[in-house]
Amino acid sequence: MTASRTLKPVLRIDMPSKLRLGRGKIELLEHIRDTGSITAAGRRMDMSYRRAWQLVDTINRMFTAVAVEAQRGGRQGGGAVVTPFGEELIARFRRMEMLVVVALDEELEWLESHQSLNDMPLISGD
Amino acid sequence: MTASRTLKPVLRIDMPSKLRLGRGKIELLEHIRDTGSITAAGRRMDMSYRRAWQLVDTINRMFTAVAVEAQRGGRQGGGAVVTPFGEELIARFRRMEMLVVVALDEELEWLESHQSLNDMPLISGD
Repeated sequence: MTASRTLKPVLRIDMPSKLRLGRGKIELLEHIRDTGSITAAGRRMDMSYRRAWQLVDTINRMFTAVAVEAQRGGRQGGGAVVTPFGEELIARFRRMEMLVVVALDEELEWLESHQSLNDMPLISGD
Repeated sequence: MTASRTLKPVLRIDMPSKLRLGRGKIELLEHIRDTGSITAAGRRMDMSYRRAWQLVDTINRMFTAVAVEAQRGGRQGGGAVVTPFGEELIARFRRMEMLVVVALDEELEWLESHQSLNDMPLISGD
């Protein structure tokens, strides 16, 4: 069961506002939690300072509560802290990913059993 | 339950080969089934002839069975037919999407209830 599938379901949530919640934003939150810094978190994801700040700004405006409290300023861009709401968002998203893996277990098994074993260079896109 | 969520989970399956199976390829298969033509199917998705063919080629190499049987040639690019395996792939992917919606119902409800109602222009990315 669910154990070691080679196929990985990837989850994204699309909102009516056209905003998307997916692994990228959640991972950024996790790195902010771990580093206490938006800049450092962005760096861990090979993201520019500007991009990391923009994403945090977006996340903070997507919901009725902010997920990150940040202080601008200082050379390192100030500190940042993930709020209790942000923590809940991380936990719930990771839980959703687990639920998907469990729900799709049988289907993933079928897909795996029909997966071509040839590796070949290919066209991207989904 | 599950009825009319405004948040839509979007599913993608990542394979070890780096290939991805998602809505794009499945929708292309559905259009091929409906039009009998790769070119026409691509047109329905605002996709170039070349791109549509490349995607079909990729889909056909992802699995142990082909999903589309096509005949090159002719001005319109010949006809194309979705194989029984392709039909099963479509059906199973659509089923997986349903399973995800059901599995995430409670979590989506929580996310919805915390969704900001302000519409604002934003940064893309997930």
